[in-house]
Amino acid sequence: MSRTLIAVSRIVFCILLMTTTPTAASQVIIPSPAHLDKREGLLLIDSSFTVRVNGYTEPRLSSAVERLIARMGDETGIVFYKDQTPENTPTLEIRCARSSSAVPTLGEDESYTLDVTPTLARLESATPYGILRGLETFWQLLFPGPAGFAIPALHIEDSPRFPWRGLLMDVCRHWMPMEVVKRNLDAMAAVKLNVLHWHLSEDQGFRVESNRHPELHRQGSDGKYFTQKEVRQIVAYAADRGIRVVPEFDMPGHTTSWLVGYPGLASAPGPYSIERSWGIFDPTMDPTREETYGFIDGFIEEMATLFPDPYFHIGGDEVNGHQWNDNPDIVSFKHRRGMNDNHDLQAYFNKRLEAILAKHGKRMVGWDEILHPDLPPDIVVQSWRGQNSLAVAARNGYHGILSYGYYLDHMLPASFHYGIDPLGEEAATLDSVSMQRVLGGEACMWSEFVNSANVDSRIWPRVAAIAERLWSPPAVRDTNDMYRRLAVLSSRLEWLGLTHRTGRHMMLERLAGYSDVRPLEILTSILEPVKFYQRPVTRKYTSRTPLNRLVDATLPESRSAREFALSVDSLLLNPDNTRLAARVKTNLQLWHETCSRVRPLVSQSHLLREIDTLITDVQALTVAGLEALDVIGKKPVPDQHHRKEWQQILEHAARPHAELLIMIVEPVRRIVETAVQ
Amino acid sequence: MSRTLIAVSRIVFCILLMTTTPTAASQVIIPSPAHLDKREGLLLIDSSFTVRVNGYTEPRLSSAVERLIARMGDETGIVFYKDQTPENTPTLEIRCARSSSAVPTLGEDESYTLDVTPTLARLESATPYGILRGLETFWQLLFPGPAGFAIPALHIEDSPRFPWRGLLMDVCRHWMPMEVVKRNLDAMAAVKLNVLHWHLSEDQGFRVESNRHPELHRQGSDGKYFTQKEVRQIVAYAADRGIRVVPEFDMPGHTTSWLVGYPGLASAPGPYSIERSWGIFDPTMDPTREETYGFIDGFIEEMATLFPDPYFHIGGDEVNGHQWNDNPDIVSFKHRRGMNDNHDLQAYFNKRLEAILAKHGKRMVGWDEILHPDLPPDIVVQSWRGQNSLAVAARNGYHGILSYGYYLDHMLPASFHYGIDPLGEEAATLDSVSMQRVLGGEACMWSEFVNSANVDSRIWPRVAAIAERLWSPPAVRDTNDMYRRLAVLSSRLEWLGLTHRTGRHMMLERLAGYSDVRPLEILTSILEPVKFYQRPVTRKYTSRTPLNRLVDATLPESRSAREFALSVDSLLLNPDNTRLAARVKTNLQLWHETCSRVRPLVSQSHLLREIDTLITDVQALTVAGLEALDVIGKKPVPDQHHRKEWQQILEHAARPHAELLIMIVEPVRRIVETAVQ
Repeated sequence: MSRTLIAVSRIVFCILLMTTTPTAASQVIIPSPAHLDKREGLLLIDSSFTVRVNGYTEPRLSSAVERLIARMGDETGIVFYKDQTPENTPTLEIRCARSSSAVPTLGEDESYTLDVTPTLARLESATPYGILRGLETFWQLLFPGPAGFAIPALHIEDSPRFPWRGLLMDVCRHWMPMEVVKRNLDAMAAVKLNVLHWHLSEDQGFRVESNRHPELHRQGSDGKYFTQKEVRQIVAYAADRGIRVVPEFDMPGHTTSWLVGYPGLASAPGPYSIERSWGIFDPTMDPTREETYGFIDGFIEEMATLFPDPYFHIGGDEVNGHQWNDNPDIVSFKHRRGMNDNHDLQAYFNKRLEAILAKHGKRMVGWDEILHPDLPPDIVVQSWRGQNSLAVAARNGYHGILSYGYYLDHMLPASFHYGIDPLGEEAATLDSVSMQRVLGGEACMWSEFVNSANVDSRIWPRVAAIAERLWSPPAVRDTNDMYRRLAVLSSRLEWLGLTHRTGRHMMLERLAGYSDVRPLEILTSILEPVKFYQRPVTRKYTSRTPLNRLVDATLPESRSAREFALSVDSLLLNPDNTRLAARVKTNLQLWHETCSRVRPLVSQSHLLREIDTLITDVQALTVAGLEALDVIGKKPVPDQHHRKEWQQILEHAARPHAELLIMIVEPVRRIVETAVQ
Repeated sequence: MSRTLIAVSRIVFCILLMTTTPTAASQVIIPSPAHLDKREGLLLIDSSFTVRVNGYTEPRLSSAVERLIARMGDETGIVFYKDQTPENTPTLEIRCARSSSAVPTLGEDESYTLDVTPTLARLESATPYGILRGLETFWQLLFPGPAGFAIPALHIEDSPRFPWRGLLMDVCRHWMPMEVVKRNLDAMAAVKLNVLHWHLSEDQGFRVESNRHPELHRQGSDGKYFTQKEVRQIVAYAADRGIRVVPEFDMPGHTTSWLVGYPGLASAPGPYSIERSWGIFDPTMDPTREETYGFIDGFIEEMATLFPDPYFHIGGDEVNGHQWNDNPDIVSFKHRRGMNDNHDLQAYFNKRLEAILAKHGKRMVGWDEILHPDLPPDIVVQSWRGQNSLAVAARNGYHGILSYGYYLDHMLPASFHYGIDPLGEEAATLDSVSMQRVLGGEACMWSEFVNSANVDSRIWPRVAAIAERLWSPPAVRDTNDMYRRLAVLSSRLEWLGLTHRTGRHMMLERLAGYSDVRPLEILTSILEPVKFYQRPVTRKYTSRTPLNRLVDATLPESRSAREFALSVDSLLLNPDNTRLAARVKTNLQLWHETCSRVRPLVSQSHLLREIDTLITDVQALTVAGLEALDVIGKKPVPDQHHRKEWQQILEHAARPHAELLIMIVEPVRRIVETAVQ
């Protein structure tokens, strides 16, 4: 037969093939356990798999075991027998020493030991929380091996580095219904996150039913809120998975939605309507009137029964002070009390708030801005400003958690988040007592530019890198290895019902007008959304702007571009490596050709029109890359004119298009620079 | 730049590109409406979209409108305003003339008229059922156009050809929980199917809670049954979508699961246990004892209140008679009553059953076997034997529905089902009165080899071809056009929550051990599961056999193979067409190369080991195809030895491997035969 054709098709194929991620031999657990010793052999998992809980037990443990078996059944396709005979030695023996609080609180003992031999597995821990964590490790170890589904033999001793490992979900800017919260709790548990920071009120929406002040949810939510029954369900669902729920009701700023039903709370006369735009707005509670505290007292009393966690987040961020400055009564109040500025006034408000919280058995959590010498040391400061601000708080006796560097809405690569340590920078210099006050961190999923259709793809799998930073020893920091494990997790999260990949596929099909989605998929694979707060720069956004464009379907991090960059760097170090050269070339060719396949879709669909210049730039960029590659190989160095042309192409391609970034610009630049040398 | 490289990549790309399915210009509705006139222009759909129901209205219509808006919101990403001002002219005006039964019954008026102009749409019908059908048409018309989401201007007058258009779901052989039934009801409504035939009892499981005879579900279900509350939910969910629910409780055979709790019902002494294998089994109710009818009477009285539909399916199929023949009391009963055979005895049973059903206001439906002159003409015969058996029934005054040719578990192509007409074959010769007795048909999803993880992929999108056969005029029979519309529907069904594509992807990832799934995806795309009842031929199956192999992840119909065959046929007619030649070649190359990429996975995973020879055969087959292509072009005709080698390769590849068929064998055979000529 025509051997040459087969040879060509070998090139053809390499473009279809992503880096494979072997699961059999290497460790895939994320977050990586504190100690892991590999052993010889495999524990086979077949339909005879059984679990027994010895020692202390409770319904939560039985539920966790049932969930594990159901999940393993889904994932393997094996029908596990329910009618296991108790006399038989179980495949997995669980031993829990003692009970712990039914609803988790800060600082539970989450450590566990997992022993797997080729004949059985044993999971031991002091409390049910350790068992819950260990079961997730057990699940992550399951893989389809050469002789059947199996768990590798090993010995794990594991415990978390930080006790507070959270994810903030903003269900206010865009509404996220029950199933979104639930599936994210499942995935959080899978990576051993233990706090859902539930951001429940904002200028754009008040999301909890209040019986005490019913106009809060009636007038402040567009009908999109959690009933008290649903809140209890979520709290129980989370507790079942060893996850605390810390509610946030942001005060005194970010409160427009409260003021729609209760304009008397504001520092300026109403009426107010639900905010539809994004940003920092004027409406602020009036901290000078006693009625405000009466209202809050009743509200917190009610919420205190709904949310059992001792910590209660009051926001406290981004008070712009306009309403305070414009209100003569407030100005004179400040003057009478000898307050220097609005920060003092907010500290007064927070102090009052803190007393109310304490009365109802709650400890205050707030953003950086709440820090003020007037506040007692048992508050927790959540820092979005950096480790240094965290260090200052800890040194002054306050507890703190880090969110700086963990903003998922910034659309940064997992490696960036992975590099941020709550005990990094100035915090690394704290004495051991102050260090203990750094409780951990929280990833933040602010929802101005995400909704329930794509929020999973913004959280997962990237948040697992943060989960590892907060759980695993600081020495665990091999980025490539993290990415390898992240890829496996990402696949397996689908079995938990996450939509981070299917949602993207459906959005791309919408964009392709239900014709073949593959070209768009390939093009999107080298793009990323713009970073930080760049989206509203070119376009006005409100809460009613459809999130149905290519930027909304594009994943925060381009795996193809990352891997392409690695290939380019290797090639530039080893220019004679023909296999590498072929791979780099074929990728550039594929992306070039993809553009002409996407072009017809652009004329068909109004949603794609905006990527017209992006396509032109990718085409020019890939041509420049291919030309430069040729030069490196053999051809004469191009003239000044040609160099300038390349430079312009690179400059064009580096600019955002339709709120998207072309992520192969930098590796192509390196090729061009090498060619020009 | 290197133009040649770009040229190569053009070849590269065509393998990535499936046939595109344009939705803008052409009609995409499935089932095709009875009359459709296209008009000029488009009705744009943006956030100002509103709906008003004029004339008669009811909660079911409001719910249907809410569902439409929610679904359009999901699919477009548009945030539709809730607070529409009633004075404004709505985008979609609905006018329903009168009420109809709250729960649908056979023969409801489902006709409707839909008028769309560039400024508004008007949907009119006599009853809410017509509105429900028309709303689905409206949804199917929505597409992302060049100027925004839009509905094309047109005029539709539509009504169904047959009043009974069903889908049988077997939730017994493999358990299918609530969400599986619900999402399939959503999809059924989307293609205007109007009967859920709910197969609720079998040898392998009794799936409904019975308060009258609680050991039925307690001992007969492994704990997997629908509570009465859940049954009511499903019936209401279906009624909301204009779908009848006809329950089937199969008697007197297929009743092992009943007998576990009530062995006294059987024709032979117990004890009985839930059947785990597939097939036809001996356990049969004893039709000679009065206690049997007392039991059934109580049972049907209870079920009659749960299932409001006047039709009640009693199965009646596949009684093998062993227990009857072996029981002297039953033999003497037959003798005393002058019965000729077991068919007479079953007719006696059915007659008694029919009287019980009538007493509780129900009409009997049963499989072919129930047909007997002793039974009254108002029963309905469901024919799995063919249109001729249906014709015989109709001629004798019985009503009938066709299921022959509509067995989805046979894994046949949509085109096959599409070609089967309830009024085809001998039924085409019926007089018009008898013809009226042919009520329609039902697709059957028997579940021996499917479970809730892959059942959607066996039903969808193929069942839509049957839905079209039952709804649309008989002249609608362009198979290629049906496939084009099926592809669009298949994509859009994902927005309804169907898992026919995501499920497959997840199963392939499991098989690939969470490494890159693309090679396996490409290989699977040219395979199909074996047909009819071939699966248990090489392997013993029980209800506990995992359905986690490649055959379970492989779709019933290979689109790639069908399109490849079309390309090959065109090429053989136009051997000088280089574009076609390139496409055929590149496909063969791709599939050849894919095999070497899948090979490493085979050694990694026990689940893939069985496809080792399949891979070898695909490799040999694609090489033979490429060689033969070369011969056709230019080379000398191969010698006898070489021809024989090709022949052997084709023979090998045509045999089932791992319960899979290689679907490109026939087109390659045509290439080889042309080469040999």
